[in-house]
Amino acid sequence: MSLNPVISVLGRKLRLAVIGGGPGSFIGAMHRLAAQLDNRYELVAAALSSDPEKCLKAGLELGLPADRVYASGLALIAAEQAHPHGADVVAIMTPNDSHFELATAALQHGFDVICDKPMTNTLEEAERLCATVRETGKVFCLTHNYTGYPMARQAKEMVAAGMLGELRLIQVEYVQGFNAREVPAQPGSWRHDPVKGGPSLVMGDIGTHAHNLLRFITGLEVEEVAAEVGSIVPGRVVHDYAGAMLRLSRGVRGSFWVTQAASGVENSLAIRVSGSKGTLEWNQEVPQILKFKPLDGPAEERTPNGPEVLPLAARSSRIVRGHPEGFPEAFANLYSDAAEAIAARRTGTQVNPLALHFPNAEDGLAGVRFVAAVIASSSAQGAWTRVG
Amino acid sequence: MSLNPVISVLGRKLRLAVIGGGPGSFIGAMHRLAAQLDNRYELVAAALSSDPEKCLKAGLELGLPADRVYASGLALIAAEQAHPHGADVVAIMTPNDSHFELATAALQHGFDVICDKPMTNTLEEAERLCATVRETGKVFCLTHNYTGYPMARQAKEMVAAGMLGELRLIQVEYVQGFNAREVPAQPGSWRHDPVKGGPSLVMGDIGTHAHNLLRFITGLEVEEVAAEVGSIVPGRVVHDYAGAMLRLSRGVRGSFWVTQAASGVENSLAIRVSGSKGTLEWNQEVPQILKFKPLDGPAEERTPNGPEVLPLAARSSRIVRGHPEGFPEAFANLYSDAAEAIAARRTGTQVNPLALHFPNAEDGLAGVRFVAAVIASSSAQGAWTRVG
Amino acid sequence: MSLNPVISVLGRKLRLAVIGGGPGSFIGAMHRLAAQLDNRYELVAAALSSDPEKCLKAGLELGLPADRVYASGLALIAAEQAHPHGADVVAIMTPNDSHFELATAALQHGFDVICDKPMTNTLEEAERLCATVRETGKVFCLTHNYTGYPMARQAKEMVAAGMLGELRLIQVEYVQGFNAREVPAQPGSWRHDPVKGGPSLVMGDIGTHAHNLLRFITGLEVEEVAAEVGSIVPGRVVHDYAGAMLRLSRGVRGSFWVTQAASGVENSLAIRVSGSKGTLEWNQEVPQILKFKPLDGPAEERTPNGPEVLPLAARSSRIVRGHPEGFPEAFANLYSDAAEAIAARRTGTQVNPLALHFPNAEDGLAGVRFVAAVIASSSAQGAWTRVG
Amino acid sequence: MSLNPVISVLGRKLRLAVIGGGPGSFIGAMHRLAAQLDNRYELVAAALSSDPEKCLKAGLELGLPADRVYASGLALIAAEQAHPHGADVVAIMTPNDSHFELATAALQHGFDVICDKPMTNTLEEAERLCATVRETGKVFCLTHNYTGYPMARQAKEMVAAGMLGELRLIQVEYVQGFNAREVPAQPGSWRHDPVKGGPSLVMGDIGTHAHNLLRFITGLEVEEVAAEVGSIVPGRVVHDYAGAMLRLSRGVRGSFWVTQAASGVENSLAIRVSGSKGTLEWNQEVPQILKFKPLDGPAEERTPNGPEVLPLAARSSRIVRGHPEGFPEAFANLYSDAAEAIAARRTGTQVNPLALHFPNAEDGLAGVRFVAAVIASSSAQGAWTRVG
Repeated sequence: MSLNPVISVLGRKLRLAVIGGGPGSFIGAMHRLAAQLDNRYELVAAALSSDPEKCLKAGLELGLPADRVYASGLALIAAEQAHPHGADVVAIMTPNDSHFELATAALQHGFDVICDKPMTNTLEEAERLCATVRETGKVFCLTHNYTGYPMARQAKEMVAAGMLGELRLIQVEYVQGFNAREVPAQPGSWRHDPVKGGPSLVMGDIGTHAHNLLRFITGLEVEEVAAEVGSIVPGRVVHDYAGAMLRLSRGVRGSFWVTQAASGVENSLAIRVSGSKGTLEWNQEVPQILKFKPLDGPAEERTPNGPEVLPLAARSSRIVRGHPEGFPEAFANLYSDAAEAIAARRTGTQVNPLALHFPNAEDGLAGVRFVAAVIASSSAQGAWTRVG
Repeated sequence: MSLNPVISVLGRKLRLAVIGGGPGSFIGAMHRLAAQLDNRYELVAAALSSDPEKCLKAGLELGLPADRVYASGLALIAAEQAHPHGADVVAIMTPNDSHFELATAALQHGFDVICDKPMTNTLEEAERLCATVRETGKVFCLTHNYTGYPMARQAKEMVAAGMLGELRLIQVEYVQGFNAREVPAQPGSWRHDPVKGGPSLVMGDIGTHAHNLLRFITGLEVEEVAAEVGSIVPGRVVHDYAGAMLRLSRGVRGSFWVTQAASGVENSLAIRVSGSKGTLEWNQEVPQILKFKPLDGPAEERTPNGPEVLPLAARSSRIVRGHPEGFPEAFANLYSDAAEAIAARRTGTQVNPLALHFPNAEDGLAGVRFVAAVIASSSAQGAWTRVG
Repeated sequence: MSLNPVISVLGRKLRLAVIGGGPGSFIGAMHRLAAQLDNRYELVAAALSSDPEKCLKAGLELGLPADRVYASGLALIAAEQAHPHGADVVAIMTPNDSHFELATAALQHGFDVICDKPMTNTLEEAERLCATVRETGKVFCLTHNYTGYPMARQAKEMVAAGMLGELRLIQVEYVQGFNAREVPAQPGSWRHDPVKGGPSLVMGDIGTHAHNLLRFITGLEVEEVAAEVGSIVPGRVVHDYAGAMLRLSRGVRGSFWVTQAASGVENSLAIRVSGSKGTLEWNQEVPQILKFKPLDGPAEERTPNGPEVLPLAARSSRIVRGHPEGFPEAFANLYSDAAEAIAARRTGTQVNPLALHFPNAEDGLAGVRFVAAVIASSSAQGAWTRVG
Repeated sequence: MSLNPVISVLGRKLRLAVIGGGPGSFIGAMHRLAAQLDNRYELVAAALSSDPEKCLKAGLELGLPADRVYASGLALIAAEQAHPHGADVVAIMTPNDSHFELATAALQHGFDVICDKPMTNTLEEAERLCATVRETGKVFCLTHNYTGYPMARQAKEMVAAGMLGELRLIQVEYVQGFNAREVPAQPGSWRHDPVKGGPSLVMGDIGTHAHNLLRFITGLEVEEVAAEVGSIVPGRVVHDYAGAMLRLSRGVRGSFWVTQAASGVENSLAIRVSGSKGTLEWNQEVPQILKFKPLDGPAEERTPNGPEVLPLAARSSRIVRGHPEGFPEAFANLYSDAAEAIAARRTGTQVNPLALHFPNAEDGLAGVRFVAAVIASSSAQGAWTRVG
């Protein structure tokens, strides 16, 4: 195998432009790190902040020339399209309400797009963006980054291989203490502005991750929800918890619980999937361990590159077993898989099918639909509500 | 402190008669073990089985004289009342539908009673039994044994001491694989007969444990539920899963999930309680560890007889720290606490208030009300339903 | 299977007399609890303390009649032998330097004996006691209680079944914080008096446990040691740590480390056994989990009564899987196994061979030899020294 | 803080040349990934393999121009020195026996050096290389990468801050199953050739890591060892296990155990450090958790960027708490710290003192001395042997 499949196919690294993620943005730093971790992208342009001074300073710190640092995302898109060595790919990590406009513009100007989640704030935007992706034929990668962990991918493959038998019951939670204080963790952040952050802070921030992870691992769709979403921290106007009962495809039943108000809890995105032959358990806080509890044998701990690793998980680890990879590598797996897809699209070559498991616009649409259904059910006093 | 507070107060051990729990009954063996573990009861009589031959054989194997082995619970109650050295206490571990009749008879014949959960199958019976307990003034201990674990008790005390601040969010699950096969784990068992086992197998078997543990630790009541209860294993007629959203007293919100159909999972009764100052996490599978995650400090692992142990937890451990006690000791804590209460009642002496935290008839009534509300909500398509 | 194999064979419970273990003794309370947990012994006599007043008070608290409470162990032995319903078994939990005299006297007066570890303080005593056991033909059980844990027994059986292949490497540690303070945990205790406590506090208290566990699980003997034993806490005269390299039978190599001076550590008796086909790991602090890491498959967690449980482990658990048993049950397993051996001996019946895995006088002698070799090697500047 | 302190100081990224680490080399891929993860180095030249064809192919795959791909390390050093935009830094990841020659040449040609461990195969070489580093004044970073983990660094800082009180006892192990099979994991590898791999495979590969980690966290030196080193897998000529008792500075005592022959074990580099006030425990397999067991309070779990994080640990994490980083980020921490030191040296500016905790040539010399002492003690039948 090539040391760098993108260079091997394209003859060079992909040129990346980023919009958003300026100083102080945790997720912006992570996007850039993820892009360069496997050496498949070269950062060539950026619009890092809506404040021009901060924007330029940050761009220079990142080693960009001043003329590739732009005052806005739309300016970047226009200029990079015209540039002789302009970006191939635009990565968007701006407030949620701008994803639709920027992603649409980038696609229509010929860029492949990597976009932070949630895809959009409204269902209508999600449907239109999905259509634009289909029409333009570009690659669209939505950074539900937890699906990049090797053991989340191993779980998906074990389910698909029938090792759990018929699926029956699913529990998923995403519990954090990030917003447990009465003073928000990020005062003044767009996250606490429902116009920018979307209809439900907790659902947009982490609820869509939990929902996507469930779909990714199980291959099932959530069909109906009975839900409650609300604010538990005194004085808060945006949502900080959501609970739901789930009815999934193939008669599977489930439980869903997300909150950012659980004081002291770090980042417990956890899933348990039970089928007729066994149960899988995984928690993002110790992502290197996937518990498999067969109906008829001892409980197992599966590990990255450990025995009986399956192909998608195997290609998602960089190191021999026992050397933990983490959140950055999981994030980078999405970027690097997308890079293979983009390089193949741009060269008209075949892509390794294992590279195509990154979340896409259809996944993003499913997430927005799920958020809408949870809110609708909660407004209807928990009535069972169809998703989509 | 006395080596045996019951002997010190009463001059002898309490005389115990058991009804139910014959050969093959896991819970019967556990009741007897729990009774004798701290040397506070002497087994003097038994009605172990409805089959007279098995009953006598088992009684003799337990070292009872043949004339104290009875063919039925009611026969035992009548004869032991008349016996010059008759039992003081009757412990009931028969199928659920007989708890009401036997416990009522035992109380009315002057016995203190220890009774397996769920207290009764119907709400009416639960209310009448509660009234009988109040009228007779006898001790009634319901064996929600998980509340006997030292770290469950430490959790209760930490909440009561305000270490979590204002409570906000609760998750409780009880997940087993006990009934994951299409052929039931105990074919022919009364558990799979709705008349004997009650309206909901999973709720009676483990749902009431989860509900009771939540109430025990938090001191809150579940006020409303939006629930679904059903059968996920093909061909099953009794319930094997139940999910609910919870609205608790003081505005607290919660999530509830129980099943016996999660293949390969052992016995995950787990609770997470979050307040404004921190979160507690406990799982029965590793009961010696209570995780405390303060808002403002490093996460802690509290252990039995470890640093900063609180009084009720301290008296619930028999050994210096680092020597794990388990399920039998937790079960025995209920028996031994009840023994102190019974010895005090019978001698008109003061009881140590710390002995009075065993579940009682009011707790049993709360459990039956919760089961009823879950079923009612599920029948009403998940509508929010008041408990009690 | 009978509910009580001792009653089934002998027609009654065994009559037990205890010497030592008065108020304040953790291990005395544990011996009595272990004896009664499975209902195979009835406590009939005791010499609980060398202080006559405390002795009587404690005996009465335990429910004994005053005339079966004795002022000394030797008085108990003489009187119980003469008593028409005298004890069958004498359990010894006195300071280490008295084990030899009391155990010898008890055996010679016709009692079966259960004795705390270390068996004796000197090698000569150990050899003579071993000879007395052989000559009298009585049952002698040494309470290396950690061998009673179901998963320690499962480990032994997995090794014996060849599941690890050829053994190669062993690590054993016993690390506590019990004596980490400059002021001893038990000031004035006989443990800190080398005459009563023996030549090495840490080796007698816990080093022999670690050594015995290693032998129990692997079936190997330690043949040579290169060791250092000493005191690390300032001002201490008795040993509080010992380290050794081990050469075992069949060319196996090992590492040994014990201390009671590791501040804050609870009770980490841990062993790792590696062979050509896999590795086992077990730690007493979470005794319900045995990790098995095969050379060619995913790591497993074996649990009591879980899948693929082996016969000795299976008979050592009282409850269905997922309901943790602990230190008291492990201790009780030795008592109950010994009870079966004693009942068989006294009735001339066959004993279940699975009952015969409790540590005996030969194991005690091996332990005393190991202590002597560790001390000798340390005195010889760590020179490799033969054991025994 | 700048988004990239190297660019801020130097105006550009550092130019990196790598020697060794061609296709199939796990550690080579890791070096390159670590260099680019924080965007502080640009790979400009390489001598990846002694096979010219493989070397060129790999260089091109990495995106290098053909004229910066060299047939040997010495050729690279000479040509890059002469190149107008030649490398600033040479990273060496060749077989152990070549480290000395290449590192010496690179230093003498004006490069800063990053070198894989062990530093050299012989003590004489180590001393000479140390002298060359001192004389040239260049930065020399030895990739004992485990010291880059945030929680290993937090441990170091907690010890230095006196949170453990006076140190007393240390256990360190490095246990793998990498070489458990009779057929080596890497047949034909230089690792199994004592001339190239050095006098002791297990000590060079992982023993020096364990030794370095111990020194890094505790600040103590190992002064004397009593050791055994050997081969346990049949037919093996190189060492696959080593055990030692340790006497450290300030009277501290310790235990050391390393092996690559523990079937099924992944990569258990674990350390326990006990002092008068508490104990720390850390294991590389779950590097995001540092256990702190104080003498007088509940056990704690410290986590990256969690509460009470100390400065060196804080700067070693890239993400908010709860998002695990792993082995690549730990490795990158050494590269990025060294980059700050190199940029400061080259610009004559002040370096952040927190950047200076990467292992250096003195640490490398200490490691080679330790290996020599272990081998000498083992040859002398375990006699206590001075280190250095």
